[in-house]
Amino acid sequence: MLFKVEMTVNIPLDMPKDVADKIKADEKAYSQKLQAQGKWRHIWRVAGSYANVSIFDVESNEELHNLLNGLPLYPYMTISVAPLCRHPSSIHNDDR
Amino acid sequence: MLFKVEMTVNIPLDMPKDVADKIKADEKAYSQKLQAQGKWRHIWRVAGSYANVSIFDVESNEELHNLLNGLPLYPYMTISVAPLCRHPSSIHNDDR
Amino acid sequence: MLFKVEMTVNIPLDMPKDVADKIKADEKAYSQKLQAQGKWRHIWRVAGSYANVSIFDVESNEELHNLLNGLPLYPYMTISVAPLCRHPSSIHNDDR
Amino acid sequence: MLFKVEMTVNIPLDMPKDVADKIKADEKAYSQKLQAQGKWRHIWRVAGSYANVSIFDVESNEELHNLLNGLPLYPYMTISVAPLCRHPSSIHNDDR
Amino acid sequence: MLFKVEMTVNIPLDMPKDVADKIKADEKAYSQKLQAQGKWRHIWRVAGSYANVSIFDVESNEELHNLLNGLPLYPYMTISVAPLCRHPSSIHNDDR
Amino acid sequence: MLFKVEMTVNIPLDMPKDVADKIKADEKAYSQKLQAQGKWRHIWRVAGSYANVSIFDVESNEELHNLLNGLPLYPYMTISVAPLCRHPSSIHNDDR
Amino acid sequence: MLFKVEMTVNIPLDMPKDVADKIKADEKAYSQKLQAQGKWRHIWRVAGSYANVSIFDVESNEELHNLLNGLPLYPYMTISVAPLCRHPSSIHNDDR
Amino acid sequence: MLFKVEMTVNIPLDMPKDVADKIKADEKAYSQKLQAQGKWRHIWRVAGSYANVSIFDVESNEELHNLLNGLPLYPYMTISVAPLCRHPSSIHNDDR
Amino acid sequence: MLFKVEMTVNIPLDMPKDVADKIKADEKAYSQKLQAQGKWRHIWRVAGSYANVSIFDVESNEELHNLLNGLPLYPYMTISVAPLCRHPSSIHNDDR
Amino acid sequence: MLFKVEMTVNIPLDMPKDVADKIKADEKAYSQKLQAQGKWRHIWRVAGSYANVSIFDVESNEELHNLLNGLPLYPYMTISVAPLCRHPSSIHNDDR
Repeated sequence: MLFKVEMTVNIPLDMPKDVADKIKADEKAYSQKLQAQGKWRHIWRVAGSYANVSIFDVESNEELHNLLNGLPLYPYMTISVAPLCRHPSSIHNDDR
Repeated sequence: MLFKVEMTVNIPLDMPKDVADKIKADEKAYSQKLQAQGKWRHIWRVAGSYANVSIFDVESNEELHNLLNGLPLYPYMTISVAPLCRHPSSIHNDDR
Repeated sequence: MLFKVEMTVNIPLDMPKDVADKIKADEKAYSQKLQAQGKWRHIWRVAGSYANVSIFDVESNEELHNLLNGLPLYPYMTISVAPLCRHPSSIHNDDR
Repeated sequence: MLFKVEMTVNIPLDMPKDVADKIKADEKAYSQKLQAQGKWRHIWRVAGSYANVSIFDVESNEELHNLLNGLPLYPYMTISVAPLCRHPSSIHNDDR
Repeated sequence: MLFKVEMTVNIPLDMPKDVADKIKADEKAYSQKLQAQGKWRHIWRVAGSYANVSIFDVESNEELHNLLNGLPLYPYMTISVAPLCRHPSSIHNDDR
Repeated sequence: MLFKVEMTVNIPLDMPKDVADKIKADEKAYSQKLQAQGKWRHIWRVAGSYANVSIFDVESNEELHNLLNGLPLYPYMTISVAPLCRHPSSIHNDDR
Repeated sequence: MLFKVEMTVNIPLDMPKDVADKIKADEKAYSQKLQAQGKWRHIWRVAGSYANVSIFDVESNEELHNLLNGLPLYPYMTISVAPLCRHPSSIHNDDR
Repeated sequence: MLFKVEMTVNIPLDMPKDVADKIKADEKAYSQKLQAQGKWRHIWRVAGSYANVSIFDVESNEELHNLLNGLPLYPYMTISVAPLCRHPSSIHNDDR
Repeated sequence: MLFKVEMTVNIPLDMPKDVADKIKADEKAYSQKLQAQGKWRHIWRVAGSYANVSIFDVESNEELHNLLNGLPLYPYMTISVAPLCRHPSSIHNDDR
Repeated sequence: MLFKVEMTVNIPLDMPKDVADKIKADEKAYSQKLQAQGKWRHIWRVAGSYANVSIFDVESNEELHNLLNGLPLYPYMTISVAPLCRHPSSIHNDDR
């Protein structure tokens, strides 16, 4: 089941650089693990913003929440979620 | 080059059904042609709305505009566009 | 899987009363059938508005969209959807 | 009498973890007590947010305010309230 | 129990004057009856707008909705509702 | 002359409790003095928020501003003001 | 007593030109009469919009409402009102 | 050339009083000098807010920006600017 | 003097095609004349919208308003205006 | 390919002046280098705000993001991006 998730990141300006870099590294590892599992299907950078547009593929709302809640950058994020489903015009087999 | 395009459709309530159906059929054909060409990479329905989230893959802003401007449903659409680019965490080769 | 769905209805002022009444009757029957099936778990009227707050219990985003898309009043509705999941404080067994 | 209450929590990033955990524990106990009493009828997590959608069942606006005002997390919350009443299509006996 | 209700009226420009005047007269009679009963405690005109700020005194959300739903101008109104309760600083006995 | 004034209070979370309590006590005394003078006609708590809806009865905009500007909690408030006047449907003698 | 009043005009596109011109002429005469009386102190056009920023000088909210309500273009206007008072830095004698 | 400029001031709550008073005094002197020069034509206080509505009379956008940029309170202000021009109904000779 | 002007066009769906085409042709001629005069310095299409971002170079707000007010498509436009001036970092001689 | 980029700068009030000045100097040098390369085609100051309207000329969304992301003031900016393309009415050869 697919969800569009948009994440905007606001890291406090006074956070020490090394602390921020550690969180970002954890975030990258966490994200890439989920991408490899097929949970985090797509992630794109919004040009000009510290934000991304992502497509998650999960079994339930619960799973979506837990995945997002586990993001190392979660406390510094503004997140919007929109449930998606297959579009009647889609020719892509797997764009459930 | 990728763009997120969100389209919300508002067909006038007093449009004769056959006219509306014809436009929708044209829209579907138009969309599927572009999907087949790889221009319209993804199209998902937003659950609960007459709206979609799409990812376009085009060579330029100009091409994006012309493709959107040519949509049969274009006059009845509210469209938002966000330029995307590769996310540093992305493991997908082709998520330019 | 639960979704909060808020529906605001705007029936055109110039719609003949009998046509409007017929659609509303169909809407009521459609809603009550889904409530009986457990799909439409809760429906409350927002005091002072021609709007409702509803909780749907469905298997997927797809099912949610099809149920909403099938509402007789759908063309006259503004709909917002929020995916819900079990709250860690909830003591209700069935508030998945 | 039912009210939809949506609560979004913003705990200051610099609050010590133990302090935050204590408040969250108090909040959970407070909430579960009210749920047990039937005052806090439903509480669901909004997937992707530190927010909940709740349905309160109280005797008056006054009681609603006092219950919300007493939330340990109250100072860190943005709250919206909508008064609900029985929907003419509802088949649920107790969805006053 | 008190509610703040703000009503903004948008009568279609093409409504015949006599029809509009009839509805307005019905609205005035309906409002004054409720004021006399103490249900509609206060009604003030917002200077510069075809809108009012009102304070309703009712037994329940249900009663509030039915009173508002019965307004002759209801179909032409945008309504916002806020539940009120006694302010700890209030010296007025009856400002429940 | 009547004005609707809505005040939302945001006291900094790191303000010492005794300091906050002192300001709140001053605010209450200040408000009750104005209520006794008839300047502050009504004050109601908005259920679920640290906010109030008030009706002021003053001789001029100037007086309104000075009364609001003098509120001990003024620096911590977001205030909206709407000028009111007698509604043609009002049956209350003194709802000028 | 001074008020800032901003008026945006939306005349229906299908209004016959002569009807519109008549209303506009009445509006101009009405406005110039009030300007001559000193009630309508200032009126400026907002560059690029069919809107104006005006300063009214009236005795009460009531008078302001009646003056605005009497505008021939009133039914086609969106109006915002802000009560003004003398600024402590003002050196203009008459900027009450 | 006239501009409507609306300024809302948000002085940090933790700014020492004497520092704030000094900036406010500088602001007043700066404003009164420009008023005396005819650059700052009008300044009114918005009742209930730490904000003003002003009318500037300048030769160019550049001059407007430099005057605003030079305000001692500029770093603590939210400013909106609207270019004005003579209204066709204005009877005031100098309301260019 | 430069202004950023953003124009969004909403031509009524029921306007006969030939009428619309005539207005658009007039608009194009009008625009190109002003561009040739250097008044309308830049005009770009916003990709995906029937809207443009333009830079006007005029002597005064008055001139800007008259040029915009004269647009054949003016009645069907939503327009926002922002006064611009030279940026301290600009290396372009003529970006007054 | 052209993009409209609007940047609003909010430098923390407690940032030491010399630190701020250094960043601003770096920003100016960075901007002027890109302007010289033709990447940053236009930059104008919005009168009355610490904000600019810019036109970037880049090969891709990726390049745009990297240029913006590299701005010394980037962490203190709110940025909006709109993809532009040639307007059918434009007479300027190079307003691609």
